[in-house]
Amino acid sequence: MATRSGAGGAKPKSRKRSPRRSAVAGKRPGPRTKQVFSFGAGRAEGRASMRPLLGGKGANLAEMNRLGVPVPAGFTISTEVCGEFSRRGGRLPPELREQVIKQLSKIERSMGGRFGDAEAPLLLSVRSGARVSMPGMMDTVLNLGLNTSTVEGLAAQTGDPRFAYDSYRRFIQMYGDVVLGIPKEFFEERIRARKAACGVDQDTELDVEALRGLVEEFGGIVKEQTGEEFPERPLDQLWKAIGAVFESWRTPRAVTYRRLEGIPDEWGTAVNVQAMVFGNLGSDSATGVAFTRNPSTGERLFFGEFLPEAQGEDVVAGIRTPQPVRRSDRKPGAPPSLQEFMPGAYRRLVDTAKRLENHYRDMQDLEFTIQRGTLWMLQTRNGKRTGRAAVKIAVDMVREGLIEREEAVSRVEPEQLDQCLHPRLDPDALPPSIGSGLAASPGGASGAIVFTADAAVEAKARGEDVLLLRRETSPDDVHGMDAANGILTALGGMTSHAAVVARGMGRTCITGCSELDIDLERGIARLGEFEFTEGDLLSLDGTQGLVFKGKVPLIAPELGREFGTLLRWADALRRLEVRTNADTPADAEAARRFGARGIGLCRTEHMFFQPDRLLAVRRMIMAESTDEREAALARLLPMQRDDFFGIFRAMRGLPVTVRLLDPPLHEFLPHTDAEVRHLATDLGIPDTELQRKVDALRETNPMLGHRGCRLAITYPEIYAMQVRAIFEAACACAREKIRVRPEVMLPLVAGAEEFKRLRALVEETATAVMKAQGRRIRYQVGTMIEVPRAALTAGPIAQLADFFSFGTNDLTQMTLALSRDDSGRFLGTYTEEGILPDDPFVTLDLDGVGALMRMGVEAGRKARPDLHVGICGEHGGDPRTIRFCEELGFDYVSCSPFRVPAARLAAAQAAIHQKQTGRRKRRR
Amino acid sequence: MATRSGAGGAKPKSRKRSPRRSAVAGKRPGPRTKQVFSFGAGRAEGRASMRPLLGGKGANLAEMNRLGVPVPAGFTISTEVCGEFSRRGGRLPPELREQVIKQLSKIERSMGGRFGDAEAPLLLSVRSGARVSMPGMMDTVLNLGLNTSTVEGLAAQTGDPRFAYDSYRRFIQMYGDVVLGIPKEFFEERIRARKAACGVDQDTELDVEALRGLVEEFGGIVKEQTGEEFPERPLDQLWKAIGAVFESWRTPRAVTYRRLEGIPDEWGTAVNVQAMVFGNLGSDSATGVAFTRNPSTGERLFFGEFLPEAQGEDVVAGIRTPQPVRRSDRKPGAPPSLQEFMPGAYRRLVDTAKRLENHYRDMQDLEFTIQRGTLWMLQTRNGKRTGRAAVKIAVDMVREGLIEREEAVSRVEPEQLDQCLHPRLDPDALPPSIGSGLAASPGGASGAIVFTADAAVEAKARGEDVLLLRRETSPDDVHGMDAANGILTALGGMTSHAAVVARGMGRTCITGCSELDIDLERGIARLGEFEFTEGDLLSLDGTQGLVFKGKVPLIAPELGREFGTLLRWADALRRLEVRTNADTPADAEAARRFGARGIGLCRTEHMFFQPDRLLAVRRMIMAESTDEREAALARLLPMQRDDFFGIFRAMRGLPVTVRLLDPPLHEFLPHTDAEVRHLATDLGIPDTELQRKVDALRETNPMLGHRGCRLAITYPEIYAMQVRAIFEAACACAREKIRVRPEVMLPLVAGAEEFKRLRALVEETATAVMKAQGRRIRYQVGTMIEVPRAALTAGPIAQLADFFSFGTNDLTQMTLALSRDDSGRFLGTYTEEGILPDDPFVTLDLDGVGALMRMGVEAGRKARPDLHVGICGEHGGDPRTIRFCEELGFDYVSCSPFRVPAARLAAAQAAIHQKQTGRRKRRR
Repeated sequence: MATRSGAGGAKPKSRKRSPRRSAVAGKRPGPRTKQVFSFGAGRAEGRASMRPLLGGKGANLAEMNRLGVPVPAGFTISTEVCGEFSRRGGRLPPELREQVIKQLSKIERSMGGRFGDAEAPLLLSVRSGARVSMPGMMDTVLNLGLNTSTVEGLAAQTGDPRFAYDSYRRFIQMYGDVVLGIPKEFFEERIRARKAACGVDQDTELDVEALRGLVEEFGGIVKEQTGEEFPERPLDQLWKAIGAVFESWRTPRAVTYRRLEGIPDEWGTAVNVQAMVFGNLGSDSATGVAFTRNPSTGERLFFGEFLPEAQGEDVVAGIRTPQPVRRSDRKPGAPPSLQEFMPGAYRRLVDTAKRLENHYRDMQDLEFTIQRGTLWMLQTRNGKRTGRAAVKIAVDMVREGLIEREEAVSRVEPEQLDQCLHPRLDPDALPPSIGSGLAASPGGASGAIVFTADAAVEAKARGEDVLLLRRETSPDDVHGMDAANGILTALGGMTSHAAVVARGMGRTCITGCSELDIDLERGIARLGEFEFTEGDLLSLDGTQGLVFKGKVPLIAPELGREFGTLLRWADALRRLEVRTNADTPADAEAARRFGARGIGLCRTEHMFFQPDRLLAVRRMIMAESTDEREAALARLLPMQRDDFFGIFRAMRGLPVTVRLLDPPLHEFLPHTDAEVRHLATDLGIPDTELQRKVDALRETNPMLGHRGCRLAITYPEIYAMQVRAIFEAACACAREKIRVRPEVMLPLVAGAEEFKRLRALVEETATAVMKAQGRRIRYQVGTMIEVPRAALTAGPIAQLADFFSFGTNDLTQMTLALSRDDSGRFLGTYTEEGILPDDPFVTLDLDGVGALMRMGVEAGRKARPDLHVGICGEHGGDPRTIRFCEELGFDYVSCSPFRVPAARLAAAQAAIHQKQTGRRKRRR
Repeated sequence: MATRSGAGGAKPKSRKRSPRRSAVAGKRPGPRTKQVFSFGAGRAEGRASMRPLLGGKGANLAEMNRLGVPVPAGFTISTEVCGEFSRRGGRLPPELREQVIKQLSKIERSMGGRFGDAEAPLLLSVRSGARVSMPGMMDTVLNLGLNTSTVEGLAAQTGDPRFAYDSYRRFIQMYGDVVLGIPKEFFEERIRARKAACGVDQDTELDVEALRGLVEEFGGIVKEQTGEEFPERPLDQLWKAIGAVFESWRTPRAVTYRRLEGIPDEWGTAVNVQAMVFGNLGSDSATGVAFTRNPSTGERLFFGEFLPEAQGEDVVAGIRTPQPVRRSDRKPGAPPSLQEFMPGAYRRLVDTAKRLENHYRDMQDLEFTIQRGTLWMLQTRNGKRTGRAAVKIAVDMVREGLIEREEAVSRVEPEQLDQCLHPRLDPDALPPSIGSGLAASPGGASGAIVFTADAAVEAKARGEDVLLLRRETSPDDVHGMDAANGILTALGGMTSHAAVVARGMGRTCITGCSELDIDLERGIARLGEFEFTEGDLLSLDGTQGLVFKGKVPLIAPELGREFGTLLRWADALRRLEVRTNADTPADAEAARRFGARGIGLCRTEHMFFQPDRLLAVRRMIMAESTDEREAALARLLPMQRDDFFGIFRAMRGLPVTVRLLDPPLHEFLPHTDAEVRHLATDLGIPDTELQRKVDALRETNPMLGHRGCRLAITYPEIYAMQVRAIFEAACACAREKIRVRPEVMLPLVAGAEEFKRLRALVEETATAVMKAQGRRIRYQVGTMIEVPRAALTAGPIAQLADFFSFGTNDLTQMTLALSRDDSGRFLGTYTEEGILPDDPFVTLDLDGVGALMRMGVEAGRKARPDLHVGICGEHGGDPRTIRFCEELGFDYVSCSPFRVPAARLAAAQAAIHQKQTGRRKRRR
């Protein structure tokens, strides 16, 4: 094996091909398949492109080796073994052992030392590494290989018995937690007790005797909790640790994370076994993390943090506050930066970082350890970044010639653009800050404070703005972080769990706010001299890392130049038009500024609900005859006309799709007795008569009731008034030389006959208005496709309609028999238990609703090839839905104004994806 | 033309082929197409098989001629001209005139006299004749050709001036009504005035002078109403009359009738122009109608009525009471029968009738006129008959060798079987109806009215016949509906709760009686102008949807021997199994007696609503923990077990499909404050707590809410209890050597994942019970397909399910976005205006719901070829739906017990139709 791995040329290549093919074909690995891939000393059996098989970390470790980056030697057990492990009910395949043992001797040769050797023990780390990064989700064991004899060897070899015993107690602790499932607190409690006994504050102050005592006590805990001694044999330790990593792929929190992120269970994780290097081996050792560019702003400045005399986990855990890598990032009076502290190692680090970024053509997130002055890279991966940074890095890299525009457009997540649009605290309204921390995730947030993730979720459900305050966060807190507008933690750095997750979510976040002290039992948070209880108001500036008392007003974000550049590139690449859902001139203006190319949904009922109009609407509803109804409608006509005029003017010649009245009439009537009495007085009719009407209009299932175009089948005068208002407004625009492109949209159409009649009504009214005003307005008449039957009978409808707009909100409700208002009681269970993959109101249900959309557009286009097709449901801004619409050949998507930039980007990405898929299909 | 029509042999045949082909291909007739077809003197250009082109009457007139039956000569203008007439906006095609004039001379040659001749005028009748009989729908003009000069010629020719002027005034009257649109009353008023002036009672008593005066006055009416003189030119009269017949095809009442009967508008009517013969030409003249068998009982006895000295319309109009044709039908003291009065004509009539029945192989409805001793047949057609007669005639004719069994089975309408099963109001004892509604459940019922379910139960306990009157019914009323003989509701449609439950119970029911207003507080029901209090007597005709005052005697249903015979023949011919929807052992027994081969839908919630169980159900709902819920369920377990035991025993080894709990839990909770207080006391909890729970469970759209299998996703213990009850009952049956075939059905499934989990729950529970009881029961687990998404994802579901049962009630609601409870406000407009062809809750919406069913069954069978497929919605008993299910290859239909015989027949007819369609398809 050693010979083979050492050989270059043809042989390794032919060996490599086999696992890659099997990974692509998704075949189960047979007993003869290669399961273990070595790396070290500038050579590797893997490479970056083998990420599906080796996981991100393993593939990058291999790739770094190939690039000549100093990486401790090791090997990767492939993700296929993870699947095999699951299929075997949590047991490792027996043929693995032999391969692992062979690989161990390779590491020994490369790094020196021998695994389990009492004189010169080789220690190992065992880490997970999935295809995509899953921060904090998977478990790690360090210092593996220590036992009662090797610990002495380590002490002798390093000349540092304290280091050896500290490593040993860390190993037992991690192994106890990860492999044996013993609660961490059991160990931490002993550490606390030991520190108290020694009269010291910090772990680092415990001397070797204290650590030796702890090791003994830890052994006792293990015996007590498991009934067995802590395993002495290093190979047993390794074997169980590998199994534990695979096992951790199946833990509930990993499963939940994957579900949230849409990661398939089948992908599995790889296991990386690697020689240990130590950042805590005296004062010329350190460990840290770094980014090749600023992950918060995107600036092209090397950025990182390190801890001297520490192991890697210490930086991430946020127990000690790390120091900056670069001198210029150091605050006055703070300890020295790495640049000052170890200039040689710093230079090597910067060189390596540059090489890696150029190689991967993306901003890298690096983990490094300096052992007695020697730099070792432990990991490189594409770094997480804020939306603002993502945009800037993508655009900059095009300018630097690193990537193409298409690549830049593909790299920024549409959600990240959303972040850029997020508000920040109004700088002119800021009180003095009452605390500060690390600016972990930008933007501003105000809200009532809570101390637990559950409380955050509850407060959000009540409609409150909420800030989550924690000592530190863990994966258990993710749902609360999602519910919160902002997160503030006492511990942790820029790369702590809180910081990474908050940036990913686009939540404002401040970490490492050392003045913060949370007393969970008493329900009190102290921040310096101030004391707060749950519900008190605070504000966070995540861009500056500052905390303020009370509610500070928010102001709209400013979009950097790169933002516009990226979107222009996206516009050039996309095929789908992006429209907006806007009901007012102000919304229409905003959406236009964000790049909307028309209004895809202008809901007229919102106009009906305005207080000054509601009385007229109610008079219309209460009318006992067509004449009375028409009289009431006549009062509404000038108001509706003004609405449309304003919107048409705002859109300056872009198409405006106006949906005629949709909700059932009872939605406009009062509900309580007091309201009924009040209205009856206003209308000048007896309470009882009004109540009778209210009762008569009440519906058991309003979603399936008398609404949408059904209103106009029974009361044509309502739509007639609306159409009159649209065309009078359009003619008024025409007089002012403003171009108008009205598109009249009928809601809740369920069949061709219904559409035919109402189209006739629209045309008749429009013609009459245009004739009276002496103007010709070009217009279209189309329909929502939001009733399953409309999708099923789309052919005949399309013969009569100019356009289809899929109303996926209602289509989802009816296709899944799922009331948006009532499903809260069980939908959570459905998505949590994976009965539904996602909330179908957020992510389009492709199997059901998507199938109807496909039928609808296919039948519609067959009947009328030039049928204009769009989507105007909430899904219209969802990237996965946009991709689906691209696939179906839609003409446009329509979404809320603030979502327009994200939709433009998503549309470009969908076009790129479609081009690639098309290419792949053609190639087959 | 005359020469051509006279010629036999090849020429007419080649001419005939052209219109027939064009009729089949649906092409528009070009100007050279034959539009007019002659008949008379034993020859005819048409024949019976040309019904689509010539209409029923025209085709039969031609056929009778071919058979040598004496028929006055005439011609038929084809139905294609009717279409042409519509397309030309109500104008006759110009090329028609020439053809008509040629035909007129042919009639003149055959019958003597000349059209418009002052000496020997030929008079004509002009009648409609559509492809299927549309009684009373189309208009007729008689005596056409009379004017101021021909009337004198007729007087001279017949020697009967009174007859001539009576004919003339009839002609002006009919022409005025039908062609000129003058209200009949205008003419009748003058007749009344004239009779009063002459001091006579009967029209026949008016003398020639009076009639002459009337003719003058009628001319004045025409002038006054139309501004023009009554047309003198006979050809003008004819031309306009033909147009009026075609026009009458487009009148609202004709359109409505066609919609109700499902007759396509495109079929059109033909016009029959025929020489007049007179039954009112003196004492040796008469006119009458006859049936070759008794249309009420089906007895093989010639049956008819006639009027001496009368025109055909007089018999139908019912102004004079006709006399029987056969001597034995004459009542003592009544005037003589035709047999006695004109024995010769009678014999010819009986001979002709026999010949016609043998020729058409069906019971004939004949119109005849005897003019001065000569018998003329004016029409023959298949006679309408009661259900009882239809069954008897069909079976008898097979025995007589006239038709085959398949033909007999095809001839009886499934609705006619329904008639046979229910008692009905004695038609001879009916007062005028005082209200009407939807014919929701057939049969007749009389009794004392009550307004609450409890009152119905009490009245029944006192031995009274009782009718339950409600605004609408809910599950709380079921015990009262069961106690009542009939149910009348103000609201609701054909599939409202009242309708569905009543049909299931075989109770007479009328729903949607909008005139009904119940004032519960004052204990008064208003029905139009009438007011009733509890205990007043009413009668309901659920077959017609009519309400009568007082007690109308009932006629018990008689199921003759023929009923069983016909159904046995049907059973031998059908492929579809027929199951029943039954929730109780009594229903199950009844359905079995009606021939159900299993239960397709056993709804378990009806069991939950029984008063003695409701408290336990409510305890279950109020439970705050799984333990509490399980304790409450444990109380329900023995009751459910008993229910299932009874049903399994009743079905003796036939399959029983049990649908697990479906409705949302709030349906079981009280609604009013008083009920809440009462229940809170029963449950021993504060009112407020109960009210809170009631409020918390309320839903905006319960149809799309937390119900069906969703209940079991959140509360698995509910279904676990039900499954336990099913299998404990099944094991108990097994111990008693009763075979059981339980099929567990999950409602509201929307996807495979949901089904998979619940199937596992069912299997786990079933296995546990069977193990504990030491029995093996073979069972199936399947699903309702009632959510559109289930039909769209049927493939994956079918891989896990043993059977599909299409729940077309809910599938209709969701596919059309149409709430059964709320659509009353607009559905009427939709069906009346033809936006929907039918009420989709009564007749399956093939384009929407049918499309989903097709997809569902095709994808399901593809995934699992042995998938068992049925339908259990209300449509399961509808013949058109059954035909569709046959076409889709379903295994069974399921319907209410009383509907089972009709469904068996419909299934046989569907199989016959399918065979024929298959044959036709193969032939192409």
